[in-house]
Amino acid sequence: MTAVDFANFVDGLASASGKAILPFFRTSLGVENKAEQGFDPVTAADRAAEVTIRTMIKQTFPTHGIIGEEFDDERTDAEYVWVLDPIDGTKSFISGMLAWGSLIALTRGGTPVYGMMHQPYVGERFTGDGNMARYRGPSGERNLHVRHCATLEDAVLFTTSPLLMSAEDRAKFVTVENVVKLSRYGGDCYAYCMLAAGQLDLVIESGLNAYDIMALIPIVRGAGGIITSWDGGLAEQGGRIIAAGDKRVHEAAMKMLRA
Amino acid sequence: MTAVDFANFVDGLASASGKAILPFFRTSLGVENKAEQGFDPVTAADRAAEVTIRTMIKQTFPTHGIIGEEFDDERTDAEYVWVLDPIDGTKSFISGMLAWGSLIALTRGGTPVYGMMHQPYVGERFTGDGNMARYRGPSGERNLHVRHCATLEDAVLFTTSPLLMSAEDRAKFVTVENVVKLSRYGGDCYAYCMLAAGQLDLVIESGLNAYDIMALIPIVRGAGGIITSWDGGLAEQGGRIIAAGDKRVHEAAMKMLRA
Repeated sequence: MTAVDFANFVDGLASASGKAILPFFRTSLGVENKAEQGFDPVTAADRAAEVTIRTMIKQTFPTHGIIGEEFDDERTDAEYVWVLDPIDGTKSFISGMLAWGSLIALTRGGTPVYGMMHQPYVGERFTGDGNMARYRGPSGERNLHVRHCATLEDAVLFTTSPLLMSAEDRAKFVTVENVVKLSRYGGDCYAYCMLAAGQLDLVIESGLNAYDIMALIPIVRGAGGIITSWDGGLAEQGGRIIAAGDKRVHEAAMKMLRA
Repeated sequence: MTAVDFANFVDGLASASGKAILPFFRTSLGVENKAEQGFDPVTAADRAAEVTIRTMIKQTFPTHGIIGEEFDDERTDAEYVWVLDPIDGTKSFISGMLAWGSLIALTRGGTPVYGMMHQPYVGERFTGDGNMARYRGPSGERNLHVRHCATLEDAVLFTTSPLLMSAEDRAKFVTVENVVKLSRYGGDCYAYCMLAAGQLDLVIESGLNAYDIMALIPIVRGAGGIITSWDGGLAEQGGRIIAAGDKRVHEAAMKMLRA
């Protein structure tokens, strides 16, 4: 199966999961409290969509592995492993806000080779394979490219929320925040897609799971961006993530985060 | 002219201003720096839309006044005065995020009698006249109603960014933030519309202009919500704003903000 075939298959997954999700958006769906402390909402939509995606993958690719947020891992030692987060940004979702999306990644030997972010309510899809990245949505279809940004002082920075960081991580984040031109909160998966689209320059987060980031890696890289851990290592396992459109901004921010 | 006629006219304003705005969304439009210090982006889209709206108002209602973000006030002593913010959430807009919208308010004797928030890219409109509020968009058309919330501890709180507050205001905000179930950033006009839609319980902001809030007041009130200044006064002039879906949450939060 070629890369194009996988792309068509992922389109089908996204369409089906979107149909599963939308009836729950901005309705009084049952919100459960998954975490013992704090507030980590899991919605019926999340599960309905993940069941839909898993069923389709198993029917078409029974030998592939699957890692998802809501259910147990399956065949993680397979050559191809899918990594799923049907609703990345559940807190935005339950608040009726639009900064959420379905993340679908296909990995081969642990490396993401294709990724999609799909926002079914808005009707837009961001895809990437590490070499190129694409947008399809209300304003048509086009390739995505990061923008140049020479210095941290010129950069627009996003993070989902500094409240999600440990005190130590937040202190480091704030040193970067104090230097950039603009710091904004509330991005979730959208921040990485807008970095790929050349709309912002830097995303810094911590405490991410692999399924929060895997699909976004080939989109960021396909648009010409850099995405690593705070210490320059692989982004593939989540944790502390830094993404930048310009390597000069990546290096400057990473230096401050390491200090 | 009846309220319904005004509603149709506002629909026309929103459609025309949406057409003026969209060519600039997620493109590398020229961003100017309006503020001497800090970063307060004004886009060509903002101005193009406000010119469009002002022209239509002057053609149809030459005796009406107009207050907008980008140009000088006109006939502010008229019985009917329009209050406009073509792109509320310009920082979201220039970052390619979706939490922005066009705000159009019609005031009579200083009181907002009709308001609309329109997001032309997503294609959704939130309207209100103080007695009822409506949604029209990708998921159809329906009335908006706030939700019940008995205590601050159960409330979902939004603010656009605590970085927009003075240190003193932020300290008070944080006392409320430490009590609520969930605090999220990045709302702009969407936070008030989602409060009206019963998706969240509390919005607290400071430093707002009248044009940032005027159109949202009849939407919040039309959905059954409460919107005042932090000290319980009128919200109509902006400043420090608190909006809640349930008066118990409004009272509890206001008590902490006053302390």
